[in-house]
Amino acid sequence: MSMVEMIHKKRDGSALSQTEIQHFIAGYMVGEIPDYQVSALLMAIYFSGMNREETVTLTEALVASGETLDLSMLAGIVADKHSTGGVGDKISLVLLPLVAAAGVTIAKMSGRGLGHTGGTIDKLSCIPGFRTDLTRTEFLAQVRDVGIAITGQTPQMTPADGLLYALRDVTATVDSIPLIASSIMSKKIASGAQNIVLDVKVGSGAFMRDLASARELAQMMTSIGAALGRKTVALLSAMEQPLGFAIGNHVEVIEAIETLQGYGPADVKALSLALGAELLVNSKLAPSLAQAEEILSALLNDGSALAMFRRFVAAQGGDTTAVDTPAKLGTPRNRGELRAVAGGFLCELDALKVGQAAVLLGAGREQKGAEIDLLAGIILHKKIGDFVAAGELLAEIFCNSDEKLALATTQLSSAYGYSEQQPPTSPLILERIEAENI
Amino acid sequence: MSMVEMIHKKRDGSALSQTEIQHFIAGYMVGEIPDYQVSALLMAIYFSGMNREETVTLTEALVASGETLDLSMLAGIVADKHSTGGVGDKISLVLLPLVAAAGVTIAKMSGRGLGHTGGTIDKLSCIPGFRTDLTRTEFLAQVRDVGIAITGQTPQMTPADGLLYALRDVTATVDSIPLIASSIMSKKIASGAQNIVLDVKVGSGAFMRDLASARELAQMMTSIGAALGRKTVALLSAMEQPLGFAIGNHVEVIEAIETLQGYGPADVKALSLALGAELLVNSKLAPSLAQAEEILSALLNDGSALAMFRRFVAAQGGDTTAVDTPAKLGTPRNRGELRAVAGGFLCELDALKVGQAAVLLGAGREQKGAEIDLLAGIILHKKIGDFVAAGELLAEIFCNSDEKLALATTQLSSAYGYSEQQPPTSPLILERIEAENI
Repeated sequence: MSMVEMIHKKRDGSALSQTEIQHFIAGYMVGEIPDYQVSALLMAIYFSGMNREETVTLTEALVASGETLDLSMLAGIVADKHSTGGVGDKISLVLLPLVAAAGVTIAKMSGRGLGHTGGTIDKLSCIPGFRTDLTRTEFLAQVRDVGIAITGQTPQMTPADGLLYALRDVTATVDSIPLIASSIMSKKIASGAQNIVLDVKVGSGAFMRDLASARELAQMMTSIGAALGRKTVALLSAMEQPLGFAIGNHVEVIEAIETLQGYGPADVKALSLALGAELLVNSKLAPSLAQAEEILSALLNDGSALAMFRRFVAAQGGDTTAVDTPAKLGTPRNRGELRAVAGGFLCELDALKVGQAAVLLGAGREQKGAEIDLLAGIILHKKIGDFVAAGELLAEIFCNSDEKLALATTQLSSAYGYSEQQPPTSPLILERIEAENI
Repeated sequence: MSMVEMIHKKRDGSALSQTEIQHFIAGYMVGEIPDYQVSALLMAIYFSGMNREETVTLTEALVASGETLDLSMLAGIVADKHSTGGVGDKISLVLLPLVAAAGVTIAKMSGRGLGHTGGTIDKLSCIPGFRTDLTRTEFLAQVRDVGIAITGQTPQMTPADGLLYALRDVTATVDSIPLIASSIMSKKIASGAQNIVLDVKVGSGAFMRDLASARELAQMMTSIGAALGRKTVALLSAMEQPLGFAIGNHVEVIEAIETLQGYGPADVKALSLALGAELLVNSKLAPSLAQAEEILSALLNDGSALAMFRRFVAAQGGDTTAVDTPAKLGTPRNRGELRAVAGGFLCELDALKVGQAAVLLGAGREQKGAEIDLLAGIILHKKIGDFVAAGELLAEIFCNSDEKLALATTQLSSAYGYSEQQPPTSPLILERIEAENI
């Protein structure tokens, strides 16, 4: 089969066969198929889509392009979690030690990611001494001994996804649902998880702006998981305003620790419990979602979750005293304030604009491999529904230069909208999507 | 501006600005923009299209990528003709000497082209001694002295079109109307013609299978011509069955000479007169299309057209005795026959299948630069509407090997369909399209 015929077929809306998709990925990996044909095919996929079978086959081909982690020697059902990314999303830092405290085995490989703030690996790097480059042997030993390990992704895993992503990034073919779904799921499958929970964000600060496309992505990912024999559940969660109060890296670690201590923002706690309950039920550690949430609440309140976080940090070489003394996580050089110019009920706090302000501060990266400032960040003092008096403190802004501070403050101020009436509260978790195993 | 933003913009259906299109072509030419971004943009154009302004700008940018021919020193309005390609299309060989005999100045650069048979340059190469590689000086001198010259395209003209076409060919992005229109028109504009007539073929043997897409292409091309100050008219002509009786190279030259001698197939003559009349009127050599056709008919009947063809052949070094003695054009080694298995009125003679049979014989090329057999070809003895008795001769087939002969005969036989009633005659010229100059 020729690649040009395959592009033609997809362009005209037909489904590619299993053999064709395997040929495409294998041929691209060995350099037989040039970038210019792959990018044309990706754009044809952007327009013509891929059905469930094609997307499952593509996921399998991406997995088959590199090493995989076999976790079957570990006791228990190994779990993993993925978020499609939002502003102020520190859920992994809370959720993973919390479910580990309940007995769920966590073996997570995490990317540094692009976005308004760093990824989980960046955030964990805020803890002095914390290692994110475990060897395979260290990683597996820690999962066995502690019950939880989180390390960086290795380039030996799903290398075809790495190549494809780099090409998609420069050819405007990133935002295709089957390509996103197969990319995310290939990494989850390759790293050996049997029990996967997906947090698909919806709203201005998310990759998926509307419910319909978020639902489509969630359905595609859970279908892939089911087709490949993994328990997979997705929750669609709101991302119109940032999650919690902290946006950045160092500030989010502090907020995550506060949540593990049993206090912390209600939305961060609620979403952690909901996602965690899915993992508990699918790891057969709770008979129902409601009972799972009760178990997890108790573990937050009695200090077990925080204790597990300490053990986890210690196992990866991190300074555990920083867990109790946030000053050890460092101190940002500059601090600014944003105050309300008018009064009223806060009815808008646009997550995208807040995220863009965080990028201006240096808290996130726009290009792969770019340096980020772990101490830069924003702490919100008011969220949607709060009443604000003129002159009241809306947010504190942290960063390492006056110039960035001024730029980011202007940007942040554009995120706010007021109304005379208190806006209705909107739900945090919008939908739950689960595919049947086949 | 970045190329990835440009791809994004086109992907999402927006029009590209003049600066963006110029940047794209200039950047591609100097190697700053890689193939993989260009192919992604081409696929986005395939799906999102380009409006008239974008297509005109692209045409200008293709022209600006290389040398152009300035014909303003020549007396009269220099004319050119282009056909989108069909089976048995030898019109240029008749039309150009015919209008030159009427006083139209012809300076044509022609490609070897891909297709079921060779292009005009391939066909002229059948004449012993005929040169298709005139230098610029020779070409211009001949146009001035004889009134007509036809030579091969130089790679110095519209090189960006050459690069883009090669990429489109391997990325399934050939059949996009704005890309086809800008490619064709850039070559016409660069070679200096002021008066252009386009023969846009419609039907099974044509690139455009249906009237709507042929009309769209014709409208786009005439709009480009008008926008760039060239008189441009397009005729849409039928290509359901081959044009004339001869399909191949050597056999088509003979049929063209017969037409110039005043006989020859009615459809070849009618289309030559109709297209020629457009050139005469736009070169201000006739007051109306009807009067132009009368002038041209007279030139066919009184030997003037044939005399001009002889002068033209002589000027380019060709053996003029071959014009009167077709045996000098060579003799094919093998001759086969296709005879009717059943009787009835011929109601189908599928141009595409006939063309494919010609390719099997070696008369056309499927890949750029491939060798073709100038003596291979088909002579039809029956066309749609003719009554055929069982056993009657349908076609003679010429070629250089028994194996090819057998394959092509089987293919050719699949082109025929019969009915009990005589099918209604269908028009040869379907529409005339002219854009207003702006």
